[in-house]
Parts: sequence; structure tokens; C-alpha cells
Amino acid sequence: MVTRLAIIGGDAGGMSAASIARRRAPELEIVAYERGPHTSYSACGIPYYVGGLVEDAGRLISRSAEEHRANGIDVRTRCEVVALDLAARTLTVRDEGREATEPFDQLVVATGAEALMPEIPGAEAIEPARTIEAGERLRAALQRGGMNAVVIGGGYIGLEMAEALVSRGMDVTMIEAGLQIMSTLDPAMAAHVQDAAERHGIRVVLESPVEEIVTAADGTPVEVRTPGASYPADHVVIGTGARPAVSLAEAAGLPLGDSGALRVDDHQRCPGHDGIYAAGDCAESHHRVLDRQVNIQLGTHANKQGRIAGTNATGGDVRFPGVIGTAVSKICHYEVGRTGISEREAAQAGIEIVHATIEDRTRAGYYPGAGPIWVKLVAEPHSGRLLGGQIVGVEGAAKRIDVLATAVWASLAVDELALVDLSYAPPFSGVYDPLLIAARALAKQL
Amino acid sequence: MVTRLAIIGGDAGGMSAASIARRRAPELEIVAYERGPHTSYSACGIPYYVGGLVEDAGRLISRSAEEHRANGIDVRTRCEVVALDLAARTLTVRDEGREATEPFDQLVVATGAEALMPEIPGAEAIEPARTIEAGERLRAALQRGGMNAVVIGGGYIGLEMAEALVSRGMDVTMIEAGLQIMSTLDPAMAAHVQDAAERHGIRVVLESPVEEIVTAADGTPVEVRTPGASYPADHVVIGTGARPAVSLAEAAGLPLGDSGALRVDDHQRCPGHDGIYAAGDCAESHHRVLDRQVNIQLGTHANKQGRIAGTNATGGDVRFPGVIGTAVSKICHYEVGRTGISEREAAQAGIEIVHATIEDRTRAGYYPGAGPIWVKLVAEPHSGRLLGGQIVGVEGAAKRIDVLATAVWASLAVDELALVDLSYAPPFSGVYDPLLIAARALAKQL
Repeated sequence: MVTRLAIIGGDAGGMSAASIARRRAPELEIVAYERGPHTSYSACGIPYYVGGLVEDAGRLISRSAEEHRANGIDVRTRCEVVALDLAARTLTVRDEGREATEPFDQLVVATGAEALMPEIPGAEAIEPARTIEAGERLRAALQRGGMNAVVIGGGYIGLEMAEALVSRGMDVTMIEAGLQIMSTLDPAMAAHVQDAAERHGIRVVLESPVEEIVTAADGTPVEVRTPGASYPADHVVIGTGARPAVSLAEAAGLPLGDSGALRVDDHQRCPGHDGIYAAGDCAESHHRVLDRQVNIQLGTHANKQGRIAGTNATGGDVRFPGVIGTAVSKICHYEVGRTGISEREAAQAGIEIVHATIEDRTRAGYYPGAGPIWVKLVAEPHSGRLLGGQIVGVEGAAKRIDVLATAVWASLAVDELALVDLSYAPPFSGVYDPLLIAARALAKQL
Repeated sequence: MVTRLAIIGGDAGGMSAASIARRRAPELEIVAYERGPHTSYSACGIPYYVGGLVEDAGRLISRSAEEHRANGIDVRTRCEVVALDLAARTLTVRDEGREATEPFDQLVVATGAEALMPEIPGAEAIEPARTIEAGERLRAALQRGGMNAVVIGGGYIGLEMAEALVSRGMDVTMIEAGLQIMSTLDPAMAAHVQDAAERHGIRVVLESPVEEIVTAADGTPVEVRTPGASYPADHVVIGTGARPAVSLAEAAGLPLGDSGALRVDDHQRCPGHDGIYAAGDCAESHHRVLDRQVNIQLGTHANKQGRIAGTNATGGDVRFPGVIGTAVSKICHYEVGRTGISEREAAQAGIEIVHATIEDRTRAGYYPGAGPIWVKLVAEPHSGRLLGGQIVGVEGAAKRIDVLATAVWASLAVDELALVDLSYAPPFSGVYDPLLIAARALAKQL
């Protein structure tokens, strides 16, 4: 008897599940339904395509539908799953206007996330640049002219898009409702990022909730209004976050967690539903430091969770060990990384912490190209256990966050971290790596 | 009663000890004896000065004798300690030809290392470029002319010097007696480094023990002879390693370990000699993976050990936790890192291991500047515990070694490492960091 594994969603989580299942179970029928035209593409790459660092949008596709098909996965692109019947174990799929019912034995829900648009007049006219096609339409619109651009939202995607627009020669204003941009960082660290953005030519406006996007009769933007001002806007990019795309799964009765994403156990199983898995942006993850379920939408988690789901759906027994909130981005001249919990997150979670921040140089002072790096560490007061870190600095700064991620993961205390045998050579750091200096500074407080 | 802390050696280990002791014990008399004219200089920076990346040799001095004196440390430069009497607790010092006896209560021996010169005719005419003054003399000699340079020894210092000579426009031949350059790496990883060196214009000759350096009557080099060939050489640089400079301490009766360096306990104390400490290149360190004493001459260890010695000499109780053989260097277009033990070191120590090597890209494939990175991991067969790693690749590759160092330090197993929440963004890696891919490849074998 051939069994049938259905996958809803053809990007990172879904196709990782499909690919590992394909390798593990050669007899299994594997069908992946993808609403859009492309599979396995890098949404993270869209700002670089918009900005022109990447000229061909096709390069953002890491594996096309044809390649997946050649690999024995029945990929149905432009094919949307519109209903899910868990009791009957069927899907209702819409393909070129026709609906059909298709059976499954096992299912991986990998429906991703969808833009969380501000509820203001005019927002409906703006297409979120979350897919390659949307990126292509944005880039075409930019090339049609108009040099004033407004980015709403100061998170990392908004910043990457703002930088992309500056490289297109636009006059760019970033409007953020909150007190700071880059809210995954604590305020003083985020201020360095704002500094980099401003030096790059991005006008940053804080504490300004957008009230309206004024559009022309044809739907193109004209200006963006906040309580205190209005900004001419030939182009508007919205980067105000995304929410897990769970309406289909929720309607079918799959349980959601407090984060609004699908609940899963550490095997990516939807609790109470045998053979039903979820992976990626639509699913929760266990945060190892906060010790609770969270929804962090990142390709790296989606890929790993998809592999876990696809392995377990084909008789495997593997466990996703959780996340610690590691993220990295390049913002203009600076690189930014964070892992574990921030001072703000600790306060929100009622976790007592100590913290220290140091400024250093990325290379030996005499070595060409040395520039600033700031490192903030957060630790548990009694044990000294490292709970999180933030890094901002020039080239070479950000990937150091992986050292802190590994230390948080392994529950190293900061006094131990301060003496770990990290590497040194003048092109890469001073004789004490900035991470060691930061760990020592925090250990001194303990 | 004022007590007197004497320090022999004014570079990393010695001045780190002096500086922390100064802060901890304001009443203590601290005297540091340095044979040369400079304190606290970066010997690691000499190749960059020779090559011209750094124009002013003074920039290699991180803290001058004057600055140390202003900080309350009695630094005696050009002042050599020629004898040490542990029973009498005195030093014999030679200062401008005059000898004097000076007392001490506590002592930190930080005499560093000295070049290990090949025992061949003509080698005595070549000055090792281990001090700023020697670097200045070498640079002056290069500027006097002659475009043929020979580097004897293919370790990282030889490679850095060869690269420096190429940037001076020299025709450079590197002659290595062994089967490969960069013997801290396993052969296949070292081959990538050789490739980078050769593409940079360095002629690499392997398996060629140098027999003679032919010099003119004035001592300047003429050619370098090996069994099979001879190489015209207007300039010769020798990078065939260094040995701990322990003759003074050994003559005084301080115990040496098997490595030839001074034995110390984990408090940097010389066993059996109260109040006598050693730190830096002249001392042993405990290798946590090999679980034995080793002598690894690196500024990073010297600084840390100096701090430990200076703290304990002033009533503290801190422990140096050992080393794991982490090192990094930039060799032409490539960056090179290593930590823990290599396949060769495991074989030499009789440690059974499994290993895997992967090739990947340093950035997302579509992101400009992506280039190759090779990662080799070594693990314990039964537990899967990571025992070591080696990385070679383009910009952004090498500092990843610190992630592996932290994982080795924390005894992570490779299957766990494969799922650690490391960062991802297109400018920094593919969606799976090369380290995760390598860990997964090795976990599969286990």
C-alpha cells in the first residue's frame, strides 16, 4: 500500500520536509501544494534584489518546482489548499479555478506567515514584498520613477528595504511608531543601528504612528501622514511584522498556542492529531531561555523544523531542540546580531538579570579596516549563566553572535566564557576578542 | 613592609601580570625587566609592518614603557636579567654593561620564546624577525634592493611573511622541509592554503630541507640550497618555529615539562617554588582535549596567563582553565582557523576519532562576495563529542572557528551542534551555516 504525504506550502519548511521524506521513503507518494509560482525561494533575499545587489530574481530560488519534481516530489504550484478535513483526511485544493478533493495519510502544514498590515486608510493599496513576484512588481514600480520613498516600520526588514531604496537613489524616510528602531535590540544598541542608517542617508522618524497612506485614483501612493507631519511618498514599503498564516489550519481544528502560531511538540507533531505536523513560520518553537513557546519567523528554523517533520513523518524519531532567538542582519555600514534574551525581554518575562556593554574594535588597532564593535551581554545574577547577547559593529562583528549563541545554548557562565580559548590574529581582533572583554566586564559585576 | 614583585620580560605575559598586580595592590613595588627597548608590543603585527600594511612600527606597541611607568610600574628597558637565585630571592640584572643584584619577594617569569633556527651553514647570518627592531632592520634591508626572497618554513608566520614580501614586489619562494605547509592543519585543508599562497604568487617548494644559506662576505644572503636545487636569495626569512626561552629559569632550578617549557599549575605557579609564577610563551598550558601539558606560543594565552599570575601574586585565587589549540590567521586570499585536535594530532596521541569535511559558501549563493569555505570536524566516535575543527575559506570564514572552540570547550556533541540556533542572513551564510552542515555530515557517520 502506497501512502500519501501531503505538504501545504512549498517554501523552506514544506520543501525541507518533502525532500528528507523523499530520501527516506522512496515508495511514498509526496505531494506539495504551493499557492504561488515558486518553491524554495529566499524571501530574505528580496531586499537585495530590490536594491540591485542581485540582478536576477531567479537566483533567489534555491530549488525550483521542476527540480523538486525531477527529485520525485509532486509539486503543484499555483495550487491553493482552501480547506482541510482532518477527520476525512482530505484537502480541498483550488487549481486554476477548479476545486478538487485530495486524500492524504500524513500532512505537513507549512503555510508560512503573512504580512501584518497596519489598519489605516490606504494600507490596502500596498502590496507586501514577501514573495519574489511582489519583489519584482516593487522593483518595476521603482524603475517607473518617483524618488520619494517611505518605509513604515523600523525592524530589520524595513531597514534592509530602506537601504535597498537608498541604493536605487531614492530619498528615503523610515517611520517607526515606537521609541526606537530594531526593537529586537535594547535601546542603546539600537541607537548605533539608527546612527548607521542615518549616515547612510535614511531619515528616521520615531514615535510616529502612521495614520493614513494617501493614494491617487489609480492606487499609487502620494503621501504618508502621521499625527505631526506628512511625507511625500511615490513608493511605500510596509515592514510592520508578520503573523503566522494559520487560518486554514485553525478552521480545521488544529490547536494554536498563545503566540497565535500552531502548537507543536518537540517532534513537530500537532498535539492530538496523529500524522499531522507543522513546521516553519506558521508553527511555534520552544524558546530555551524563556522556557516557553514562541513564534519566530526565520528561514533557519523553518528548514530545520521541516527536516524534523519530514523525518518523523517517515518513521523517524528526531527532536527539534528549540530556539534561542538568534538573528543577524546587515544594516548599511553595520552588522547586527542578537541571541538569547535582551534586557527588555528579561524585564517583560520577569527574569532578573545583570548586564554589561563594552565598546571595542573589530581588528587590532593598527590593522587596516578596524572599526567599532559594541557587545552587550545579559546573564543570570546568581549562576552567572549567559542568557543573551547583542552585537553591533562594522564588518566582522555580527557572526560573532554565533559564539554567544553556542555559549547560551551550552549554559556557559560569563566568567568561564571570559577565559575560553577563542582565536586571535591582528586581522580579526585585538588580543582579547571583544566577546572575552564583554564577558570579563560582566563577570566583574557578579 | 613593602614587598617587591619582579617581572622578567616586558611583553604580553609580563606586562599583563604587572598591570593587574598594579591595580590590585597599590602599595606593592613592581619592577619589570625587559631586555629590548619596547614593552607590550604585538609580535603578530610584524609581518604587516614588513609588508607595508602598517607604516609606523610604533603602532605595534600597545603600551609603551613610559605609559607603564606613568601607571606606577617600574619598567627597566634594555635591562637583561642574567641570573636568578631562588634561594636568595635575587636577580642579577645587566643594565648598560653594569651588573647589579636586585631582590624580589614574588616573581613572574615571562621570558617568552626564541627562534628555533635551522642548524645549517649561513643560518647564523639571518636575524629572526621576532622583535620590532628586527622587523625594522628587515624592512630597511628590503628597501635597499634585491628582489629575490626565500622564506624557510611553511608555518603561519612563514606564510604571513611571504605574503608581506610579495606585497613589497618581491619574487618569493617558500621552502618547507615537510610534506605540507601549515602543519597545524590536516593535509587536505593545508592544500587549500597552499593553493591560495600560490595564486598570490608565492612559489611553494615542499619536502626540501634547506642545507645551506650561502652568504656574501658582508653576511648578506646570496642563495639558499636544498638537496635538489638552489634558489637566488637577496633576502632570507626564517620561520621554522620557536622554543620557550627558559635557559635562565632552568639554570635557576625551575622545573621544565616534557614540552621544554616551564611547568606551572593551574594558578601559573611554578611547582615547589612559593611565590614564583610563569606565564606566556615560556610556560606550559594544559590542553583540555589532549589532557596533557603543551607549549603553545600565542599572545592570547600570554595575556590571560599573565593576568592569572599577576592576580594570584597579589593574593588572588584564580585559575587558568587551559587551552584547546585555537588559532586563526589570514593567508593571502584565505582565512584559516583551527581549534581542538586535528586528525593528525589524534593519531599521534592515539585517540580514536571520526571526521568529516564539507565545502560550502561563506554567504548565500546569490549574495555578492560569496566564496568557498571548507570545514573539517573531528569527533569522539562513541559520544559524538566534538574534539576539533579546521576552517579554510574566504573573508568571513575564519572567525567561525570561535563557534567550534566554544563547542569543543563545552563538550557539545556534533548531533547537538547540528541543531544549535546559529544566525542566518544572506550576507553571512546560506540558510544552514557551513558549521551546521559540517556537524550534520559528521553526525550522519556516527
